[in-house]
Amino acid sequence: MKTKEIAKYLDGELIGNGDIEILNVGKIETAEKDEITFISNPLYEKYFFVTKAGAILVSKTFDIKDKKSDATVIKVRDPYLAFVSLLELFNKDESGNEYGISDNCIIGNNPVISEKVFIDDFVKIGDNCKIGEGTKISAGCFLGNGVSIGKNCVLGNNVVIHKECMLGDNVSVHSGTIVGSDGFGYAKNEDGSFKKILQKGIVVIEDNVEIGSNCTIDRATIGETRICKGVKMDNQIQIAHNVCIGEDTVIVAQVGISGTTKIGKRCMIGGQAGIVGHITICDDVIIGAAVGVSKSITKPGMYTGYRAKPFKEELKQEASIKYIEKIREDLKQLINKNNT
Amino acid sequence: MKTKEIAKYLDGELIGNGDIEILNVGKIETAEKDEITFISNPLYEKYFFVTKAGAILVSKTFDIKDKKSDATVIKVRDPYLAFVSLLELFNKDESGNEYGISDNCIIGNNPVISEKVFIDDFVKIGDNCKIGEGTKISAGCFLGNGVSIGKNCVLGNNVVIHKECMLGDNVSVHSGTIVGSDGFGYAKNEDGSFKKILQKGIVVIEDNVEIGSNCTIDRATIGETRICKGVKMDNQIQIAHNVCIGEDTVIVAQVGISGTTKIGKRCMIGGQAGIVGHITICDDVIIGAAVGVSKSITKPGMYTGYRAKPFKEELKQEASIKYIEKIREDLKQLINKNNT
Amino acid sequence: MKTKEIAKYLDGELIGNGDIEILNVGKIETAEKDEITFISNPLYEKYFFVTKAGAILVSKTFDIKDKKSDATVIKVRDPYLAFVSLLELFNKDESGNEYGISDNCIIGNNPVISEKVFIDDFVKIGDNCKIGEGTKISAGCFLGNGVSIGKNCVLGNNVVIHKECMLGDNVSVHSGTIVGSDGFGYAKNEDGSFKKILQKGIVVIEDNVEIGSNCTIDRATIGETRICKGVKMDNQIQIAHNVCIGEDTVIVAQVGISGTTKIGKRCMIGGQAGIVGHITICDDVIIGAAVGVSKSITKPGMYTGYRAKPFKEELKQEASIKYIEKIREDLKQLINKNNT
Repeated sequence: MKTKEIAKYLDGELIGNGDIEILNVGKIETAEKDEITFISNPLYEKYFFVTKAGAILVSKTFDIKDKKSDATVIKVRDPYLAFVSLLELFNKDESGNEYGISDNCIIGNNPVISEKVFIDDFVKIGDNCKIGEGTKISAGCFLGNGVSIGKNCVLGNNVVIHKECMLGDNVSVHSGTIVGSDGFGYAKNEDGSFKKILQKGIVVIEDNVEIGSNCTIDRATIGETRICKGVKMDNQIQIAHNVCIGEDTVIVAQVGISGTTKIGKRCMIGGQAGIVGHITICDDVIIGAAVGVSKSITKPGMYTGYRAKPFKEELKQEASIKYIEKIREDLKQLINKNNT
Repeated sequence: MKTKEIAKYLDGELIGNGDIEILNVGKIETAEKDEITFISNPLYEKYFFVTKAGAILVSKTFDIKDKKSDATVIKVRDPYLAFVSLLELFNKDESGNEYGISDNCIIGNNPVISEKVFIDDFVKIGDNCKIGEGTKISAGCFLGNGVSIGKNCVLGNNVVIHKECMLGDNVSVHSGTIVGSDGFGYAKNEDGSFKKILQKGIVVIEDNVEIGSNCTIDRATIGETRICKGVKMDNQIQIAHNVCIGEDTVIVAQVGISGTTKIGKRCMIGGQAGIVGHITICDDVIIGAAVGVSKSITKPGMYTGYRAKPFKEELKQEASIKYIEKIREDLKQLINKNNT
Repeated sequence: MKTKEIAKYLDGELIGNGDIEILNVGKIETAEKDEITFISNPLYEKYFFVTKAGAILVSKTFDIKDKKSDATVIKVRDPYLAFVSLLELFNKDESGNEYGISDNCIIGNNPVISEKVFIDDFVKIGDNCKIGEGTKISAGCFLGNGVSIGKNCVLGNNVVIHKECMLGDNVSVHSGTIVGSDGFGYAKNEDGSFKKILQKGIVVIEDNVEIGSNCTIDRATIGETRICKGVKMDNQIQIAHNVCIGEDTVIVAQVGISGTTKIGKRCMIGGQAGIVGHITICDDVIIGAAVGVSKSITKPGMYTGYRAKPFKEELKQEASIKYIEKIREDLKQLINKNNT
């Protein structure tokens, strides 16, 4: 595909040679002359002069004259989004379009399985399960009795969906993730030991959710743990029993959310953050990486710190610590002065 | 079951209609009129007036007159424990009571397997393994050579128990957990690279232990990593080589405990806490969520903070940080005053 | 093996009885009289007088006279390294030296598999995979299409290597680890929902790398995620897309490293540390446990704190917090004094 064709496809402005043949997309550091790359993060502008890429996507406000290079450039509204659409355009991967049910999997009684599904080897599906059209279940997956999975879902390898849990349409669950294990609930016996509380609820995962690898999402004690429409979860995330995650919320790797907590819509939760149980986070909250949240949050905005505080407040407090030594010295001098 | 019968079963005091037919238990927010619910946490008292539940379990000290409602109420000593016993009473789940060994599993030489066990498809059990009566091993589990599992244990899907590790009776290990992988031990070579140290020990898990999903418990270098009687562990917990966890200790999700550390009895360790290696935590210690413990703890009590300190001390220090700005200003004024 | 023979083997100095028959190695707390143990960490010197071990490895500088014991001692340059070599010497484990391909595994089209490999039951290997001599693939592993694995590698149970990823020689990947799942990348749609970005890159793991259990290493968006020669990773570590970990770097359990970050050579990263995306850590950096790194590090040395700072600076700041209360009081007195 020629650079002038790509510019047209992206509705962008071509500056330079329109006849360069582009065969693929590439990272700016390593792209070859038959590849197109992009600059979105200013950190990468330094590569503008050295990249071997055949063409570079930049934003409309990117000042080329200032850069004085003869690279071929396509100016677009959002270079990152444009790059993503080229990634798809150049994606020739045809694998994963196969359908069929392996002879080497085990399917329980009363299955309701649509015609165009892919069920791989070493899969076991319990009784009374439903699997929607276009859904793919990779090798090593186990589905308990009464599990229901919608259309066009993808389960990676070794995914476990325990009994009666429900997945909507277009849900991806990556390898090694466990959905619907028992919630962590005990009542204390009088001798100090613990009695397990039966975990009778389920997990519901709504449409268009993506869940990373090696996550754990516990079933509710009673009722349901719910991951709402459009939620995106990274790897190694822990969701406890009876949690509810609101629509289009994004959760980065290794976050832990304790029991019965409700997270609002369009939140962003940074990696390794931890949220205690029985609280509510409102819509449009941004929680920084490794932040600890121990109280409900009722105002949208950004929260940071070992104990979550509004970002600016926490930054100020954090910064103030470095003055303590200076304060001690000044105070000592002043006391000495006052004593003489 | 009628409300008057439930009151009798729980040895509670019925206030209201004794003839309501209860078919199930429910959460107070969503319970229907044929369900019974409970109030234990004061946060949920607000639902007392709005729940549709047929009956509500409350504590003996709960003041109904003050609440002025005509709901049917059963007063009991501990509403949560009472609710847990009703959960079991109404539990009609008969699944999981099947026994038998799948044709689709592989069992090594010299097995010692009791009669009433359940071994599912796609399981591989090594040579010289012992499996006690009533134990269930779910699809996708792998047991190394010489593994020994007691009576009435349950292994979820994709659980791995590496060679020679030992589980007592009534042990539950949830899906995706790995018991007995190599401890993390290397000796530094002179060129800066690392030489692996053989990990020759085992993991011993005593009776009545429950371990969540996707945990990792490493085998000892020599000797054993030991999880003592009655310990309860949530998901995604990391236990390093040669660690010992004392009886009836409770560990919340995503905790990491480094090598050779000993934890006492009846401790509670909050989610995402981290404990360094080669230290000892005494009995009856409570460690808050996300707390870092880098020194032995010799006194029972609660410890909090990014660097663990006794709770009250840490709270005071944390609170003091917000005064720094005020101190700076006051000091500045005082210095100015002294200089004029 | 007699103590005098062991002393000779280790090129050490024997003090005591050279004719004690040693059959195994043991921990100093529990070693028996036919076992040899060691003292490396001063914390364990207290056991010198009470151990039942037949012999004790100590360093050349260890002062035995001061200790006044008649234990048999072997003085060596590095007691820990000496102990490690004895661990290997006494290791009689012959298991794991078997080769062969199970009838109960599935291998795709066009395999290039060396002769002396071990492929266990319930393994599925995709099309066009290469597996080098001496490599062992345990039960429950899944390899995508086009995966390449070098010589003398070991994959534990339930390891997943997704399509086209490459492992060098002598690589160990422990049970439950997922290599090559999709990186976590989305572009925001105008309605606030998210569009998945295709993850077209791979993961490359170089020679002599060891990776613990239940880790996740994501494939690159484009290009590669790379774990360089000799890296040692503990359990439950998250490596995001396009990360590069330098040679001989050691990473302790539950660390998370975000997208596109580059870690230098010979770094040591403590447990539960978190490193943000798009930064660079230079060679020879030590990052403490649970440290958060949000900016590039350009100088070797040790960094600690909730927000990473050079160790000494952070220690000083942390220590200064406990003076705030005293400062407040002193200042109050001084203000009162000035006002009277």
